[in-house]
Amino acid sequence: MSRIHWEDFETGEVIDLGEYEVTREEILEFARKYDPQPFHTDEESAGDSIYGGLIASGWHTCAMMMRLLCDAVLLEAESMGSPGVEKIRWLKPVRPGDTLRGRMTVVETRPSRSKPDRGLIRSHWAVLNQEDELVMTMEGMGMYRRRDSASS
Amino acid sequence: MSRIHWEDFETGEVIDLGEYEVTREEILEFARKYDPQPFHTDEESAGDSIYGGLIASGWHTCAMMMRLLCDAVLLEAESMGSPGVEKIRWLKPVRPGDTLRGRMTVVETRPSRSKPDRGLIRSHWAVLNQEDELVMTMEGMGMYRRRDSASS
Repeated sequence: MSRIHWEDFETGEVIDLGEYEVTREEILEFARKYDPQPFHTDEESAGDSIYGGLIASGWHTCAMMMRLLCDAVLLEAESMGSPGVEKIRWLKPVRPGDTLRGRMTVVETRPSRSKPDRGLIRSHWAVLNQEDELVMTMEGMGMYRRRDSASS
Repeated sequence: MSRIHWEDFETGEVIDLGEYEVTREEILEFARKYDPQPFHTDEESAGDSIYGGLIASGWHTCAMMMRLLCDAVLLEAESMGSPGVEKIRWLKPVRPGDTLRGRMTVVETRPSRSKPDRGLIRSHWAVLNQEDELVMTMEGMGMYRRRDSASS
C-alpha cells in the first residue's frame, strides 16, 4: 500500500482516529512523572477537590490523542513533524475507565512556502468520551512530504 | 509559608522554572508509549530523517515543561487546573543530553467572571536549551483560588 503524502489529504475530510481506554494506573503513572498535582495523583485529595475525583492531566489527554493519531495516520504517512498547535481546550475532566475517541477534520491544505518538498495540513482535533461529550479540542499543524518531491 | 493564591501573581512578573535534563532513555520511553514516529523512537531512522538524529516528541517537551511548572509553582499554589493553552510552537528539536530551562512570564491576571472563588492567570511560557536557544513557546491559562474566597 502506498504511504500517505501531503496530496492525499482533502479539506473537509473527517478521519476517525479510533479509541483509547483510560486506566487509573496510566493516569497515576503519567501524573507522577509530569504533572503531580494532587487531583491527578491522589485519589483522596482528588475527591476533596473541585473535580470530585481523580482526573487525567490535560497533557496526558494530549499524549493519548497523539497516540491515536500515530496509529491511525502518522505511522502510515510521510510525516515530517509539526511546527505547533493552537487553541487546546480541556472541556471536561477525563477519568479512570473513560473510553476516549479521536476525530481529525482537515481544515486547510497548502504547500510550504519555503520548502518545496513538503506541504502543511491544518486540522481540527476532537476528543470525545463514552457519553459523546467533547473532552478536548485543538487545532494542529502537520508537515507531510509531497509525493512529487525529489526525495520521496 | 503561605500558599500561593491568585492575588500573588503580578502582570509582568517573570518566574524562573528551573532545569530539566533530557535523557535518551526518557525520550524513547515517552515516544514508544505516545508518539512512536521513527524520528522519536529509532536512532537509525532518526539519523536518516530531516532531523539528523533522535528528537523528543513535542508533547514530551510540553510534559517536561509542566513538571518544571509543578515543582516551581503549582505544588505550592492553590491551583484549580487549566481551561486550555494557546500557540504552542516547537521551534527547535530537543535532543538527548539537552538541558532545558523554563521561564514563565505573567501576561494578565483577572478574576473569573462566573466563579467568585477563583481568578485566571494568562502567562507566556518559554523553554530554552543549554545554548540559550528557544526550543518551545506557548501561552497558558491557569485557574487559582482567590485568597479572599470563603473556602480557602
